[in-house]
Amino acid sequence: MATFFGIGVGPGDSELMTVKAVHTIEHLDILYTPKAHKSGTSVAEQIAAPYFPESLMIKRRHFPMTNDWEEKRKSWQVITDEIVADVKAGKNVGFVTLGDPSVYSTYSYLLDLIDDQVAVETIAGISSFSQIAAEVSIPLTLDDELLEIIPATADEQQIAKAIDVNDNIVIMKISTNLPKIYQLLKKRNLLTKALVISNASMEKQKTFRLSEINPEDKLPYFSTVLVKKSADGSV
Amino acid sequence: MATFFGIGVGPGDSELMTVKAVHTIEHLDILYTPKAHKSGTSVAEQIAAPYFPESLMIKRRHFPMTNDWEEKRKSWQVITDEIVADVKAGKNVGFVTLGDPSVYSTYSYLLDLIDDQVAVETIAGISSFSQIAAEVSIPLTLDDELLEIIPATADEQQIAKAIDVNDNIVIMKISTNLPKIYQLLKKRNLLTKALVISNASMEKQKTFRLSEINPEDKLPYFSTVLVKKSADGSV
Repeated sequence: MATFFGIGVGPGDSELMTVKAVHTIEHLDILYTPKAHKSGTSVAEQIAAPYFPESLMIKRRHFPMTNDWEEKRKSWQVITDEIVADVKAGKNVGFVTLGDPSVYSTYSYLLDLIDDQVAVETIAGISSFSQIAAEVSIPLTLDDELLEIIPATADEQQIAKAIDVNDNIVIMKISTNLPKIYQLLKKRNLLTKALVISNASMEKQKTFRLSEINPEDKLPYFSTVLVKKSADGSV
Repeated sequence: MATFFGIGVGPGDSELMTVKAVHTIEHLDILYTPKAHKSGTSVAEQIAAPYFPESLMIKRRHFPMTNDWEEKRKSWQVITDEIVADVKAGKNVGFVTLGDPSVYSTYSYLLDLIDDQVAVETIAGISSFSQIAAEVSIPLTLDDELLEIIPATADEQQIAKAIDVNDNIVIMKISTNLPKIYQLLKKRNLLTKALVISNASMEKQKTFRLSEINPEDKLPYFSTVLVKKSADGSV
């Protein structure tokens, strides 16, 4: 049966894709790839490219990065209609997404719009926070510890509370929200326990502590923070 | 340089291993695999087995499942000493672990004991909670929502608080702690919003809601719960 596959390509290194993701791509007819800017390239497409079969038709589509939800929904609806039509025409159709398709991914909105119109299969991917921990060989969470994943875009009080009650905190979408997060962690004396990874597993990967930068610094778009209260600052 | 590799094999399906994990295993000299029971098999070894090169030496080691920390530490120390000796003898040595090596994994204790004695590289894997979301094609977390990962072994009050303040909650290590978690969720009218996956991506996989079982039921060892307060109960 023709199916729509949502495929997580992991944090950046093509080798961090799963065997299942690779096999799925090898048997696709059409692959939709997301671009944040009309003229730019698709990072997810670049990660998956080593596994593209010659016969694969690529459909690059623009996903606007805006706070205008009406504009975003309209774009998603147009793309969804196109995907549904392709699957109904008997094609196996894929969509690649960075990291894990179930964690803060535009894929979830497409899923919602596709609803039950066609068969869907989601293929999990390595998330950026999983990769941070692997890069520095430290546990994300251990024993009876809790782990909280927070988007830096959330309400400031909610973030503050989450930082206060958890041992291990991952903060995503940090780049445009650095000043807010920096001050919250500084107030709690946690800057030295906050590890940042930018462009995880990509060529331009950088790992540093928040205490090593200024709150006005510009972080790369793909940056994630791991705060471990038990960290001794030696990593 | 001879290295010790901690390799996440994902939740169960061999295809959910990353290409990097497969390539790493293909170039190992020795692979340590963990067994929970002296006479049993190693689930992580079975998952990775399709990729074993002929020349690979397998060292199956028993990791006692006990609350006696002294006994556990002694076992880990013996295994660590053996691993370090193998790497110092110039061998590339691996250790396979279920799911993601950074999430509630015995691998973290080995890492701690190995310290800086030999070079270490950790290879991320798909965690069980990532696989739950993929299996049912629902987002773990979206937009400004937070996601909390809780071990069912944690303090009851801490778990209760985490359930109260979060939109999305993953509860791990549920099998021997079902009555406690069941009552906590029942009190909050969340049983119908609690999705359980047992043996994710394995042959015996089962997906059901907590409302469909009794608190006295026996869950398989590999069971994970995803509570989504926004769920409409239709999945």
